Amino acid sequence: MKIEKVEFHYLADDHIRDIGDGSQDALLVHVIMDDGSDGWGECEAAPLVSIAAWCCPMSHLACKPLKMSVIGFEINTPADICMLTEKVRRNSFDLLQADHTLSGIDIALWDMLGHKYGEPVWKLLGYDRAYPKTAYASQLFGDTPQMTYEKAVQSRKAGFRAAKFGWGPFGTRTVREDIAHIDAAREGLGDDLALMVDAGTVWGNDVKRASQVLSALRKARAVWLEEPFASGALKAYAELAATPGCERLLAAGEGAHNPDMAYNLIDFGGLGFIQIDTGRIGGISSAKKVAEYAEKTGITYVNHTFTTSLALSASIQPFAGLRSSSWCEFPVESAAPSRRLTKVRIMPDADGEILLPDMPGLGCEIDLSTIERFGREVTIQYEGETLWKAR
Amino acid sequence: MKIEKVEFHYLADDHIRDIGDGSQDALLVHVIMDDGSDGWGECEAAPLVSIAAWCCPMSHLACKPLKMSVIGFEINTPADICMLTEKVRRNSFDLLQADHTLSGIDIALWDMLGHKYGEPVWKLLGYDRAYPKTAYASQLFGDTPQMTYEKAVQSRKAGFRAAKFGWGPFGTRTVREDIAHIDAAREGLGDDLALMVDAGTVWGNDVKRASQVLSALRKARAVWLEEPFASGALKAYAELAATPGCERLLAAGEGAHNPDMAYNLIDFGGLGFIQIDTGRIGGISSAKKVAEYAEKTGITYVNHTFTTSLALSASIQPFAGLRSSSWCEFPVESAAPSRRLTKVRIMPDADGEILLPDMPGLGCEIDLSTIERFGREVTIQYEGETLWKAR
Repeated sequence: MKIEKVEFHYLADDHIRDIGDGSQDALLVHVIMDDGSDGWGECEAAPLVSIAAWCCPMSHLACKPLKMSVIGFEINTPADICMLTEKVRRNSFDLLQADHTLSGIDIALWDMLGHKYGEPVWKLLGYDRAYPKTAYASQLFGDTPQMTYEKAVQSRKAGFRAAKFGWGPFGTRTVREDIAHIDAAREGLGDDLALMVDAGTVWGNDVKRASQVLSALRKARAVWLEEPFASGALKAYAELAATPGCERLLAAGEGAHNPDMAYNLIDFGGLGFIQIDTGRIGGISSAKKVAEYAEKTGITYVNHTFTTSLALSASIQPFAGLRSSSWCEFPVESAAPSRRLTKVRIMPDADGEILLPDMPGLGCEIDLSTIERFGREVTIQYEGETLWKAR
Repeated sequence: MKIEKVEFHYLADDHIRDIGDGSQDALLVHVIMDDGSDGWGECEAAPLVSIAAWCCPMSHLACKPLKMSVIGFEINTPADICMLTEKVRRNSFDLLQADHTLSGIDIALWDMLGHKYGEPVWKLLGYDRAYPKTAYASQLFGDTPQMTYEKAVQSRKAGFRAAKFGWGPFGTRTVREDIAHIDAAREGLGDDLALMVDAGTVWGNDVKRASQVLSALRKARAVWLEEPFASGALKAYAELAATPGCERLLAAGEGAHNPDMAYNLIDFGGLGFIQIDTGRIGGISSAKKVAEYAEKTGITYVNHTFTTSLALSASIQPFAGLRSSSWCEFPVESAAPSRRLTKVRIMPDADGEILLPDMPGLGCEIDLSTIERFGREVTIQYEGETLWKAR
């Protein structure tokens, strides 16, 4: 089958707020083959810019729009999708946004192939089974420790076995306030639930500032400290990881937009957990490579996802068969376009675990009325020629 | 002064060829302050996608279009420009293309400030003087060893003291052919000229394949081997660098789109030379940080540039005052929009050296007729609203 058409759907809430919630818009990718087969994927990326990377004019040999590599490419096997990934990277490595656009296309192709063969993606990836993953309720810190406490209580009451708090005021004020938030989270969760803390790169590369919350994290039995530093600050990660009491505590990787960046965090950053967003790293093909490398090096693989059930499914497939990597990010505060994208939402079961559907492809049915409701029109023209026009 | 307006000019040749020549198009940035001061910069990036990163709708807190951070920002000192760089990175770190767009804006602001104060940028950067740099004629390998030989002869006749050959067939066929190209280049240059070889990331992360050209490079007394691997393949760089005879031979860094990526190549990649494109890394502010780090760690800093005199000047300013970093990339095969952008081209002198003009800002006067001749119209609309329309 050849790739005949790639459609992008830019979904956005009616009002986008200036908060750390990436679910307020979404870029859906619909791939259609020349025999009518199709599949859906999603880029975790700036929608308009990612569409521009699809349709822009060529600058030179290594700065081509993705459409030049993708349209007409023959896809019959998983290996073909991986070959397309390599082709796009070779043809577009000077086009910075390309990895984000590629991600949604790659995911849609895996979905398409799963439907074609009647198999879930994790089977096409070579796994015998999909292990249940323990969902952690992923949410923002409250504005005050009291609000963080109340959110934690809410997560416990909702039946989660773990919760992660991130962003908001954490790291931006005093160490004392950070510690109050950590303590409040632990108190609200009670003794049994696992706690993760996400600093959202707030400390840049300031190892000393980050190290001041370590004893509070230990006392609260935090499973990990996520992104204390900018995603490429390898030396800062390595230095903090070498601090006594910080062994295997650090988590990072969501910013990785190719497998090399994830390998570098593993090889040189001293991580305990590598967190990959399939919607950024180049899709399922690239994420699976990182999952294999994590398995080989004894690092725990965790999905990063903050938007739709489609993105959640795509983010779990690459490590579905890794028994030892058992945590799963589950966003609990999604905005409407993300919440309503699929007809059925993937949810934790009564034990707080998520099991991927044993259904073809990604196992998600898109609710076209949500595209109708939240779809936004984009037009891009060059020298009077319309390169892109769609909603 | 506040930033009042940022104009982007998308220049492109009439016909873009599918070759490794990034000078066929250009994205010029013209920054205008509220007191009428102005400056020019250039992004080494896909023009249309970089414009989209400027004007797209906000996705969330860390995925904002650059205009939200830039317009109205107060710039009176060099430190203000660095603060703006940090603000853009904080506000847009999930917008992958942002670093490339930022680069041209940052460069234009340095140019503006230089004109305002009547000082060349290198003085604003704290250097007492600009040392002359030895230009190497940067060009593609010929299709055959004979053509490479002829290009080398041409560089020698043109008075260059060094030449670099890259891309083209190199690395894509047999080791024997690679060696023939290296030998031909050395033969054409004669004994005295310095030779650099650029593999253009052709070997991905294949250390064994790369190591097969090492003895030929040694025999030809190559100054460096550039980008044998993808720009993030740190482990492959480290492994090749540890091969006997490869000490301080490796050069890389042009793909770095923030200072961390360059630091990582220095800290973990075993490089001898770090090559920075100010049009990609976030501009002069970011490049200067890398120059300082190179100086501190004893690595040679080299500019990467392949387009206009404006880009060449911007690429040299950050290391103008570093005496020990004395090589300078000089593109010799530029296409028309790049060649004709400035009224006066910066050229090597009779000794094959380049000295930055002791003139305010970047010392370049833009030829507006070139913008008129090669400017291309771009229109971007969202929900019927025109976000961008200009040529």
